[in-house]
Amino acid sequence: MPDTTGPDREAVRLILEKVRAEGRTSLTAPEGRAVCTAYGIPTPEEGLAGSPEEAVRLAERIGLPVVLKIVSPDILHKTEAGGVLVGLTTAEQVADGYRTIVSNALRYNENAQVLGVQVQRMLEEGQEVIIGAATDPTFGKIVAFGLGGVLVEVLKDVTFRLAPTTTAEARSMVEGIAAAEVLRGVRGAEPVDAEALALLIHRVAELVTDFPQLAEIDLNPVLATPAGATAVDVRVVVDDRAAVEPVRLSQEEILASMNRIMRPTAIAVIGASSEPGKIGNSVMRNLVDGGYRGDIHPINPKATEILDRKAFASIADVPGEVDVAVFAIPAKLVPRALEEAGAKGVAGAILIPSGFGETGDHELQDEVVSIARKHNVRVLGPNIYGYYYTPERLSATFCTPYDVQGGVALSSQSGGIGMAILGFSRSSGMGVSAIVGVGNKADIDEDDLLTFFEADHNTQLVAMHLEDLKDGRSFAETAKRVSRTKPVVVLKAGRTAQGAKAASSHTGALAGDDKVYDDILRQSGVIRAPGLNDMLEYARGLPLLPTPRGENVVIITGAGGSGVLLSDACVDNGLRLMAIPSDLDEAFRAFIPPFGAAGNPVDITGGEPPSTYRDTIALALRDERVHALVLGYWHTIVTPPMVFAELVTEVVEEYRAKGVHKPVVASLAGDVEVERASDHLYRNGIVAHPYTTEKPVAVLGAKYRWARAAGLVPG
Amino acid sequence: MPDTTGPDREAVRLILEKVRAEGRTSLTAPEGRAVCTAYGIPTPEEGLAGSPEEAVRLAERIGLPVVLKIVSPDILHKTEAGGVLVGLTTAEQVADGYRTIVSNALRYNENAQVLGVQVQRMLEEGQEVIIGAATDPTFGKIVAFGLGGVLVEVLKDVTFRLAPTTTAEARSMVEGIAAAEVLRGVRGAEPVDAEALALLIHRVAELVTDFPQLAEIDLNPVLATPAGATAVDVRVVVDDRAAVEPVRLSQEEILASMNRIMRPTAIAVIGASSEPGKIGNSVMRNLVDGGYRGDIHPINPKATEILDRKAFASIADVPGEVDVAVFAIPAKLVPRALEEAGAKGVAGAILIPSGFGETGDHELQDEVVSIARKHNVRVLGPNIYGYYYTPERLSATFCTPYDVQGGVALSSQSGGIGMAILGFSRSSGMGVSAIVGVGNKADIDEDDLLTFFEADHNTQLVAMHLEDLKDGRSFAETAKRVSRTKPVVVLKAGRTAQGAKAASSHTGALAGDDKVYDDILRQSGVIRAPGLNDMLEYARGLPLLPTPRGENVVIITGAGGSGVLLSDACVDNGLRLMAIPSDLDEAFRAFIPPFGAAGNPVDITGGEPPSTYRDTIALALRDERVHALVLGYWHTIVTPPMVFAELVTEVVEEYRAKGVHKPVVASLAGDVEVERASDHLYRNGIVAHPYTTEKPVAVLGAKYRWARAAGLVPG
Repeated sequence: MPDTTGPDREAVRLILEKVRAEGRTSLTAPEGRAVCTAYGIPTPEEGLAGSPEEAVRLAERIGLPVVLKIVSPDILHKTEAGGVLVGLTTAEQVADGYRTIVSNALRYNENAQVLGVQVQRMLEEGQEVIIGAATDPTFGKIVAFGLGGVLVEVLKDVTFRLAPTTTAEARSMVEGIAAAEVLRGVRGAEPVDAEALALLIHRVAELVTDFPQLAEIDLNPVLATPAGATAVDVRVVVDDRAAVEPVRLSQEEILASMNRIMRPTAIAVIGASSEPGKIGNSVMRNLVDGGYRGDIHPINPKATEILDRKAFASIADVPGEVDVAVFAIPAKLVPRALEEAGAKGVAGAILIPSGFGETGDHELQDEVVSIARKHNVRVLGPNIYGYYYTPERLSATFCTPYDVQGGVALSSQSGGIGMAILGFSRSSGMGVSAIVGVGNKADIDEDDLLTFFEADHNTQLVAMHLEDLKDGRSFAETAKRVSRTKPVVVLKAGRTAQGAKAASSHTGALAGDDKVYDDILRQSGVIRAPGLNDMLEYARGLPLLPTPRGENVVIITGAGGSGVLLSDACVDNGLRLMAIPSDLDEAFRAFIPPFGAAGNPVDITGGEPPSTYRDTIALALRDERVHALVLGYWHTIVTPPMVFAELVTEVVEEYRAKGVHKPVVASLAGDVEVERASDHLYRNGIVAHPYTTEKPVAVLGAKYRWARAAGLVPG
Repeated sequence: MPDTTGPDREAVRLILEKVRAEGRTSLTAPEGRAVCTAYGIPTPEEGLAGSPEEAVRLAERIGLPVVLKIVSPDILHKTEAGGVLVGLTTAEQVADGYRTIVSNALRYNENAQVLGVQVQRMLEEGQEVIIGAATDPTFGKIVAFGLGGVLVEVLKDVTFRLAPTTTAEARSMVEGIAAAEVLRGVRGAEPVDAEALALLIHRVAELVTDFPQLAEIDLNPVLATPAGATAVDVRVVVDDRAAVEPVRLSQEEILASMNRIMRPTAIAVIGASSEPGKIGNSVMRNLVDGGYRGDIHPINPKATEILDRKAFASIADVPGEVDVAVFAIPAKLVPRALEEAGAKGVAGAILIPSGFGETGDHELQDEVVSIARKHNVRVLGPNIYGYYYTPERLSATFCTPYDVQGGVALSSQSGGIGMAILGFSRSSGMGVSAIVGVGNKADIDEDDLLTFFEADHNTQLVAMHLEDLKDGRSFAETAKRVSRTKPVVVLKAGRTAQGAKAASSHTGALAGDDKVYDDILRQSGVIRAPGLNDMLEYARGLPLLPTPRGENVVIITGAGGSGVLLSDACVDNGLRLMAIPSDLDEAFRAFIPPFGAAGNPVDITGGEPPSTYRDTIALALRDERVHALVLGYWHTIVTPPMVFAELVTEVVEEYRAKGVHKPVVASLAGDVEVERASDHLYRNGIVAHPYTTEKPVAVLGAKYRWARAAGLVPG
């Protein structure tokens, strides 16, 4: 019976004290069961027997058939040790069984301390599921849910959330596995009690949150029936290291520093140089050439003037406040210079040099961080190209300046990826608010950037390349908040490289897996990009598309063949093709040839004049039941590419002027003129690509994923 | 006991005769069991009881516990009807059980004819699997294999092959499902007898091949144990329509016509016109402007000369042989003109006009096909843009000419996709042998094209966009042969649109599913492209890459961040990152900075001069244990993009000159100059893309998929 009076924390505390006192790292089965009971997690009726006779007495009291399980702190994998017997139906079997499993256990581990044999009621049949909790290196306490046995172990059909969970989140786990249909009942089976499962997940999450030293918990199997759920076997691993929490700054502290770093009034370049080719020269040049209007102070003891700016021997000599110090000096010189910059009161130290953690010199990096902490300086890097903030015309980098202002903020953990961001932006004319290299992330990380970009009116979307998260929990919480108003796109690299893990529970073995990232990022409303180019295309396209007001997507195409591929792409991207109501269908038919197909896709056929495209697109924009448009263009002499591009731009603008804002994307099939036509459309807010049906739909799909997670798309 | 004397076909024939005589469409359970026995498929000991008493006698003879199942030709889904009871352990339970399921069955269907109750030995526990056969609308007889219950029904973890199968193919099915690990034994379980399962699949395939009127077979469940496999329940559906086979031409017949069509010495343009804007004018113009050197005969009763060519009133008036007639006249005029062209002895009728099957006029299309058959004319289309064959400088189309010769042959079912092929080819400078529109495929289909391209020395790769296959079996067989020497890339559109199906077996319900296409195309060595752009990029890239001689892929990168993303892409594309032997690792280390990472990716770090790229690439080309290279470039001042492009070209060419041919692909991260650098690399046979780590690796992955299927990559 689930108990609703709240958990008995005192009971758990006492058990954990005893475990600690005995120097153990895991709970015995009876202890595990007691912990469950304290948190209202049902377990089967049972008892601990110290002899074959006691086992028989217990079995007769509980009711046959029973299950016998070895109880030993030294044996975690009971089945492997031959320490489990099921379906014992007579007293004789129980007595024999006791003797068998004790001797099996001792054969398995002759030094095992055997505390007795657990006699457990054998439950009626049900659906086996696994519920667990673990301590993830990135996200801290997480809970896991999956179907039992093969499905979790072989097919990895398992889902994760941060602990604690709301009951809605716990419920979403029960519904979120691939095989969820099994729980809803297949082949006429009754559905299991999903609420009971959600409650169990919720309570396990509460338990590990209350007692963070619980490093791993497996309820495996949990037997789910239409009437409830019972944890048949419980495994609990204790580890004090699992209770350590990362230090976090407050939002106010982060913003105070980040505002000074991103919108500085004065910058010092430590290691500024007049010599072309030097990093200290490139940084100076880019600050000047980029058009930064604040003060630029070159710091170089050997110079008096650099690029027409007075040079200082030390940052200490600079008159007035300095917000940012850009370091363009070798790694080993950084600590001393950082002491000076800290004393001067800079808000941010931009550490371009490499030669820290990434080359194995963690000590030097730690030293730098501790100097920065002492002076309340935030460190960006080390090992970075620098950063751009276009509203301030700030290009604090040794790469080339970038000045196309716009709403997209990007960051990268890798310099190479930063350069790809820069090249793609320039090539596509993408409007950017910021590009930031975070490198080794000795201090400033994605979490700090998100906090700044959230408040930054110049930023509409944040796109981040990352290989790891220093504090995944904090990132997830921040991203959840930010993504309610601004899309957060993440390219998580290294998703297929799975670190080796030593864990003694199923759930523990799954921590650190990419699926954990995937589930938690999605729960945080983050749009995960499958690859670099996708991240860039999402970043470029999403801010142009209005937020859809509903799920009804309509494809209008001049090429039936494109229509089929666009439909495929819609399904692949989780978009719902509108079931066209008959009045709308008739209205479409009025514009298209009799052999054209209405329905969805609306196939206007290939030989049609511009007016057919225009009329059908206008109709879809006008009809309030339609929420998004996917256009398929087929190059013909009757409607050449630029004519199509111009008519689409016109009709979309006409309706925008009337207050109709719907996302429109287009796929252009045709000879090379479709490239210019696509560019024209893109410049006018219509996400358009030539020679691909996949890309424009993927961008629309990403917009929908964001809008749904942000709660902006009605049912 | 599997019997090795071969199937008892006579026994099956007699059973099927009886079923036919009784007008039934399915076999009873005992009949199904007898069919299995005839083909050496083990079934449990059992008997048919006509009364509770007889059931008890049978049960006692077979041995308790037993299973009871209703036997009725009117009840296919026994469980649903309450017609199955398991685990009956006493005579009393058997007698009661008999009465229960008969009354359940009659409640389920009061008109059901109950033939009795099957009493079956209850088998020891084992792994439930499903083995089945069905008649697919595209591929004909197929066999299916999957794990029982939930895994097939909910997760669709099932795999298909054409029947008959070789034993190797059957074995590949057992290993080919996602949950195959279960069969190999998980959690210390013994592996099941995979050979026995493969044998069962093989025999089911043989059975439906011998008796094509067997429309659907389900062996569900089959119980697999370490000692063998037994079909516990058998369901067989009979339908004479399932035995109909499509008519096929011989290879010689196909080639004779296709050679004349693709390499004609004289072409007539029916409906040729002098008036710009008319299709008959565009076709004439493209033939002339494209540089076709054969005879071009305009046919137009109202003209005497068109584009300086003498015009004829009818094709009958043309002197000499005509190989191809291109039709640029309205649909309704086609039959008469085709009669004349047929009488003239043309090999091919290119039907550009629409207004046939695609607009609902199937009668007109059928009429045209039958006229063509009568005259032994092959029909391309109708409803197409025409076709290109660059070795003959032939542009028989109303689109624009294309003359960049090369090894890629492409076809499309849709005109829009054809235009996208043309535009992409022109934009990327792709060398093309042919572009062919197949449109409605009234006659000539992909199978005919494959047969021609196989023999065509100008073609090295075939890429096809298709929405359906007229005769999937024939295509699969042809593709299997062709793909041994030339990659066959297929973009199958409509893969997510699943037609509604009425089938009475699990396997039957799965026929027509996209997974059937997927499995059978893969088995045929076809490289399936996930989207339009992928098809185009595979087509462009694959012919440039030498065939890899082994599975060892090495990533060499200047950007650690690209290295991680490239590794992800390798895993995504089924590529194996070489475990670098220690001597090779040391050799790499000699070239890269101490903090660079050898291993794989080889991270040469970002600040390195051209020589580091050159030395490490040369080393990887030189070392025979390395089979393919993935390069990651990071734009720096030290090694600018074009310097990288030129050095890579040089070193790759140097080794090609020495006879070292390894595929090399590159991802370029940097400012816009990397676009020109990528082009330079591509023109020199190195598949290179800017701003994406995914695309170059996907092309290499496609090359590997092809080479493996063609048996060209050693283990």
